Amino acid sequence: MDKLTIKSLYRKTEEYSGKEVVISGWVRTVRASKAFGFVEINDGSFFKNLQVVIEDSLENFKEVSKMAISTTIKVEGILEITPNSKQPFEIKAKKVVIEGKSNSDYPLQKKRHTLEYLRSIAHLRPRSNTFSAVFRVRSLAAYAVHKFFQDRGFVYVNTPIITGSDCEGAGEMFQLTTMDLNNIPKTNEGKVDFSKDFFGRPTNLTVSGQLSAETYALAFRDVYTFGPTFRAENSNTGRHASEFWMIEPEMAFADLTDYLDVAEDMVKYIINYVMENAPEEMEFFNRFIDKGLFDRLNNVVNSDFKRISYTEAVEVLQKSGAKFDYDVEWGIDLQTEHERYLTEKIYKKPVFVTDYPKDIKAFYMRMNEDGKTVAAADLLVPGVGEIIGGSQREERLDVLEKRMEELNLNKEDYWWYLELRKYGETKHSGFGLGFERILMYMTGMANIRDVIPFPRTPGSAEF
Amino acid sequence: MDKLTIKSLYRKTEEYSGKEVVISGWVRTVRASKAFGFVEINDGSFFKNLQVVIEDSLENFKEVSKMAISTTIKVEGILEITPNSKQPFEIKAKKVVIEGKSNSDYPLQKKRHTLEYLRSIAHLRPRSNTFSAVFRVRSLAAYAVHKFFQDRGFVYVNTPIITGSDCEGAGEMFQLTTMDLNNIPKTNEGKVDFSKDFFGRPTNLTVSGQLSAETYALAFRDVYTFGPTFRAENSNTGRHASEFWMIEPEMAFADLTDYLDVAEDMVKYIINYVMENAPEEMEFFNRFIDKGLFDRLNNVVNSDFKRISYTEAVEVLQKSGAKFDYDVEWGIDLQTEHERYLTEKIYKKPVFVTDYPKDIKAFYMRMNEDGKTVAAADLLVPGVGEIIGGSQREERLDVLEKRMEELNLNKEDYWWYLELRKYGETKHSGFGLGFERILMYMTGMANIRDVIPFPRTPGSAEF
Repeated sequence: MDKLTIKSLYRKTEEYSGKEVVISGWVRTVRASKAFGFVEINDGSFFKNLQVVIEDSLENFKEVSKMAISTTIKVEGILEITPNSKQPFEIKAKKVVIEGKSNSDYPLQKKRHTLEYLRSIAHLRPRSNTFSAVFRVRSLAAYAVHKFFQDRGFVYVNTPIITGSDCEGAGEMFQLTTMDLNNIPKTNEGKVDFSKDFFGRPTNLTVSGQLSAETYALAFRDVYTFGPTFRAENSNTGRHASEFWMIEPEMAFADLTDYLDVAEDMVKYIINYVMENAPEEMEFFNRFIDKGLFDRLNNVVNSDFKRISYTEAVEVLQKSGAKFDYDVEWGIDLQTEHERYLTEKIYKKPVFVTDYPKDIKAFYMRMNEDGKTVAAADLLVPGVGEIIGGSQREERLDVLEKRMEELNLNKEDYWWYLELRKYGETKHSGFGLGFERILMYMTGMANIRDVIPFPRTPGSAEF
Repeated sequence: MDKLTIKSLYRKTEEYSGKEVVISGWVRTVRASKAFGFVEINDGSFFKNLQVVIEDSLENFKEVSKMAISTTIKVEGILEITPNSKQPFEIKAKKVVIEGKSNSDYPLQKKRHTLEYLRSIAHLRPRSNTFSAVFRVRSLAAYAVHKFFQDRGFVYVNTPIITGSDCEGAGEMFQLTTMDLNNIPKTNEGKVDFSKDFFGRPTNLTVSGQLSAETYALAFRDVYTFGPTFRAENSNTGRHASEFWMIEPEMAFADLTDYLDVAEDMVKYIINYVMENAPEEMEFFNRFIDKGLFDRLNNVVNSDFKRISYTEAVEVLQKSGAKFDYDVEWGIDLQTEHERYLTEKIYKKPVFVTDYPKDIKAFYMRMNEDGKTVAAADLLVPGVGEIIGGSQREERLDVLEKRMEELNLNKEDYWWYLELRKYGETKHSGFGLGFERILMYMTGMANIRDVIPFPRTPGSAEF
């Protein structure tokens, strides 16, 4: 391996000053006159390019000065610090070897391309500045999630992707089969004969690992999932994808306040980690993608998140005198316009809204004393609205069963979930964070398709 | 949250000595006489239990002394160091609150259960010693993978789970659909009308992220995937699951030797990390699951892995005089018996076998100068056989296209993969490690179903 990277040269410039270095990379630009020129290369290790100075003393100067973008080259030369230039140093080339030629029809020419166009070349777009920044931030944010939870003793659990139950209740599902779709086996009654299918039953792709994660929280105390989840919903918006990654922590011996504390710490931790470890990328987003980005993120990191009940939120919104498309009254599911008004106009910082009406929340959320609300909470952030949802879980077997009966859920489908309450019920809480949601928040990228390497949306499964 | 954990008490015993502590946990055993007793509890934070001493001065002594296993309790008491006992300390209870009752029919009683039985209670088995150890090791090993690559500047890339191509070539695939299986839309020709399906085309679950990962390696230099992959193969063995997690690093500017170096470092790193961070769990495996475990792992960590070519391996096996079920001759795919003989009997340490005949390897592996072998390598380890497979990738467009033609692959299906070679071909290499494979290796667990929280195998998608 050519061990030396452009990142090392940027991080330890003094150390390499005046020394001979060997660097491989891909050509980003070539500007050359007859005797002299500049080649910018990038090797993928770092957001910024390396400037290489070429002169006609190079034996292949002519060829080098005409290289197409994305040509792969290996450069030997001397590193010179350039205090008066735009870039802090450059390489005076002694030798340039062309390792792989490119073509003049290379689709990623040095000019502005639309994000839509770049989606059509998803195999090449990570070579652009924008997507180089997006996907390095994605990687660092993912690691920050793991580090946050592992440092706190949480156990990472891989909940199943293929699920035999359709009772996860969070949305429409993709079916899975190995049967020949041209010739589906049928029972005598003319129904699909799932006994002939791979798992001997209908199976789907998971929409949430939460119920499985609860089983592990009641063994390991603190656990988290971080994996792909799926929605077969036909919504073609900038905020929905059919395949996306979710983080779902579950904590035993934890109530609603404990969930809020952990979620607040986690959001701040992820943002801080990325700001510290990708300063060049974040600077790029702040300058070219979203000029208010640093203000917004600093506000999140430095605020104590506001915590109000749903009932208070409804009152505050009603008293605000603001005009909304949807009227606010107790019992409604808050719309994005209401959420954003609360977090952007009223509190001007992240807001947890707690204790929602039971009728707009899931069956497993813990019933409050009032019998009308549940110990749920959503986190709303300026610029987006809801980014996290979660709750204390109903640990009381009788209350949970009563709630399932009200909602006509089939208890047999949940036998193992109910057994968790039969053998030592335990106060516990958890929440879910859509990974792409926080990536969009941290980068300013407005479309979920632009924070997923190869996005899957209705009608689109290219690459 | 009850902040104090049993792990803290074990790690900082001196600090808590003589102090009052409050601990919540689940009852593992109760042994009590009329006036006096011991309760062992576990709170999931640590492999070992906490011993609680109860006396009849407790107001609910009678009830406490008859608690069923898995009862949830909260204990207030004084920590006393007990230098002459089996456990290093215990809690003299001043108060025991029963938070959640259990039942005498709790399925995980204090006795030996078969692994088969425990699979049938996958929602409870992480509360047993064996699975508590397995799944904490799984979590730590996953983190070790991330830490190894992130510390080296690799970018984590989430390659897609849903794939529109069936050209990944690594095995049989699960189909995905949202069409009504009772009433599949058909074209005028009577074929399945995929234009009516969710993505407007046939889609499957990925069997490998490699080809997508290559696109990112050629932008970011060093990348890795770590996510679920799927095989719809009807093999009911202890080593195959339908859903499992894979780690697939890809490195630009790297040849076969670079792959071997990184893979060797990675395997050693993961083992060392788990040994350091789960000493109690590893001790348990070494004592109760696989008595040769520490010897085997220490041998791996302290060896320089052997590197031999396939051609040498064949000669060595032929000269060994050993009797095999399958005869060894140049051109065959090595069987597990051959692999194990090489690594266990001949070299007694891990062995990379390199440069396999092209006909038994995939189309994308780089052709060697001899025209007969490819720059591939498998890692064989004592006790298992193959654990990693990988290669230098064919970066020469003409050679790759010729190979695809020989194998009757449709080049249009791979247009984006081929474009990587058209616009600046680059030497690059990568490999794949089945995550469950290395977990089995590190724990001594013999069945893959016992290292996956909720395993999916032919005919089985419970929970």
